[in-house]
Amino acid sequence: MKEIGILGSTGSIGTQTLDLIENNENFSVSYLSANSNYKLLAKQARKFKPKFVCLKETSGLENLKKELHDCEVKILSGNDGIIELSSNNNIDLMINALVGYAGMQPTLTAIRNGINIALANKESLVVGGELIINEIKKNKVELFPVDSEHSAIWQCLVGENKKEIEKLILTGSGGPFRSLNFSKFNHISKEDALQHPNWEMGSKITIDSATMMNKGFEVIEAHWLFDVPIHDIEVIIHPQSIIHSMVEFIDGSIKAQIGTPNMTIPINYALNYPKRTNVKNFKYDFKNSKNLTFEQVDFRKFKCIKLAYEALKLGKSYSIVLNVVNDICVDAFLKNKIKFLDISNYIEDSLNNHKPQNVDSIELINEVINETNLMIRERIKK
Amino acid sequence: MKEIGILGSTGSIGTQTLDLIENNENFSVSYLSANSNYKLLAKQARKFKPKFVCLKETSGLENLKKELHDCEVKILSGNDGIIELSSNNNIDLMINALVGYAGMQPTLTAIRNGINIALANKESLVVGGELIINEIKKNKVELFPVDSEHSAIWQCLVGENKKEIEKLILTGSGGPFRSLNFSKFNHISKEDALQHPNWEMGSKITIDSATMMNKGFEVIEAHWLFDVPIHDIEVIIHPQSIIHSMVEFIDGSIKAQIGTPNMTIPINYALNYPKRTNVKNFKYDFKNSKNLTFEQVDFRKFKCIKLAYEALKLGKSYSIVLNVVNDICVDAFLKNKIKFLDISNYIEDSLNNHKPQNVDSIELINEVINETNLMIRERIKK
Repeated sequence: MKEIGILGSTGSIGTQTLDLIENNENFSVSYLSANSNYKLLAKQARKFKPKFVCLKETSGLENLKKELHDCEVKILSGNDGIIELSSNNNIDLMINALVGYAGMQPTLTAIRNGINIALANKESLVVGGELIINEIKKNKVELFPVDSEHSAIWQCLVGENKKEIEKLILTGSGGPFRSLNFSKFNHISKEDALQHPNWEMGSKITIDSATMMNKGFEVIEAHWLFDVPIHDIEVIIHPQSIIHSMVEFIDGSIKAQIGTPNMTIPINYALNYPKRTNVKNFKYDFKNSKNLTFEQVDFRKFKCIKLAYEALKLGKSYSIVLNVVNDICVDAFLKNKIKFLDISNYIEDSLNNHKPQNVDSIELINEVINETNLMIRERIKK
Repeated sequence: MKEIGILGSTGSIGTQTLDLIENNENFSVSYLSANSNYKLLAKQARKFKPKFVCLKETSGLENLKKELHDCEVKILSGNDGIIELSSNNNIDLMINALVGYAGMQPTLTAIRNGINIALANKESLVVGGELIINEIKKNKVELFPVDSEHSAIWQCLVGENKKEIEKLILTGSGGPFRSLNFSKFNHISKEDALQHPNWEMGSKITIDSATMMNKGFEVIEAHWLFDVPIHDIEVIIHPQSIIHSMVEFIDGSIKAQIGTPNMTIPINYALNYPKRTNVKNFKYDFKNSKNLTFEQVDFRKFKCIKLAYEALKLGKSYSIVLNVVNDICVDAFLKNKIKFLDISNYIEDSLNNHKPQNVDSIELINEVINETNLMIRERIKK
């Protein structure tokens, strides 16, 4: 029996995780947390009978308590509640499906408590990669990637020697603007950018797909997860999203992980590793396969990827700036305050003007986050 | 230092193997054998300094002795010489690159002497699969596949649990007649059939590619090599020969091995397993990739694959009939004695009329080979 805890159980990854373990005798849910959706959290608690639930936004707390008044479950709230959960080491695996920087502290807390993590929170590694990887080594815990690209690389590396990696090849669909002429990029509207060809996701991540900053973040995550130098990580456009990523070895052999574009397989793999378990749906059938195509990345169109490479090369606090400025700019773009290409321009500018700091504690990281936040908000206002 | 012996060192696999270990301090060549090319064998012996060489066709023996009169090498000949070599257990790996049934006895001999084998001889497993796999289990040796499809599957299975295999997906280019209308198959000439789009090979194997019998043989080999039931082995047409084969797991995840269509990678992998070593050339670049396409097999065009599945399902001595009749028919086709579609028709007929026998010894296998040989030669004459 595997005891699991889920941070962010009412989001897309959280609900898909629960779908996978429903009626599965191998899993028991120890805790669940949600941001504000107390109704769904209560429903999940009734079904999965965790020992703890936590609602981050305290405004809904009374409602949650009402919903669960007849249940044997301890109800926590706020950031403190989440930290309490993530330090609970009576579990085998914590799924961190929190969104944003808020996911970083629980990641660190779990690591320091010796808990293995299935990580779906991008910020943990993009912003805090060095700190987190150091703590992982120190505490000898395992970090399992949940998103499809890193799960693909992880699966390709099973049984292989990391020293024999030639390069990692991250695939990306290229988003909705892959074939758009660059001259038209300045007229991309919010509505245009919210259309993604293969994956249905929230609006922030959909814009990150349109700028391909999500792929830039994945390059940074891959670097930390697999300990591969930045110049050995390549991004290739693969519009069909069938090959989820690849590893080339020093002998010229390339291994790829393939499947329908669906999060079920990577979530299920992280949950059950090192075992694979039967998932009924979502099988990819090569007998009815589309043509699989590949293109080079046009870094003029997708400057965000280039900026991510640069931020990682520069090291120190640069990746924090990359992430924070992108966050604020995507939000500003969604509010029609800035243009599509402004996103990468603001990031480039911010990286150029950043005074780097060593980031060896979460406090320092939060400081840089806050400073950068203020800086970029000011700049956009002007 | 790895001591290796090569049976068939002057053929395509043999020479590529020697190219790979030339100037490689990790390998030492213990023996080399050739069929009739004494000149090349002598040249190889001077370069690689084996303890033994063997020339199968005794007619060239005196010439070989002359060529090597000043070398410290023991010169053997004939089948006895090959059996003497394959029972030499002072080596770490025997590369069996012999062509035809003659490769089976050395495979068995090596296994019974506890020698690991890199197997490029198709007949060993197509004809003697059950016997060989039983001996392998008994003698606890390892059998490494050398051809690209099985090497791909082997690589995809590294670190994986065989019980979690959903199916093996063997890819095949479809050969030169993939897109030819079936109505024209009866007019396929020897010259047409000798054109292969991706691989350059001898004429027998090129015809086997054109009929896709080679893929049928590979299905049978895959069954024995990986212990996967016949109904869990699928063939898919992939004209570009970039994905060399795949494994689908029970969780819906598919792993593929990819590379340029070149034998260097699989040979090098078998030589160095479990290590991977640097091979300078032949890297596949997805930035300049062709579109990768996939099609169902048209079993009307490529009945040979269907017949291979049937022979394996029927078990016992049926695969021997499949192989022998195919051999004789391909030869007859190359001599313009029968038509292209006659190849599969003769095989089908022969399978239908075969009285199956248990084949638990090489003697019984050779008996069935000889009987079938006589039978099919008689039938073609009529």
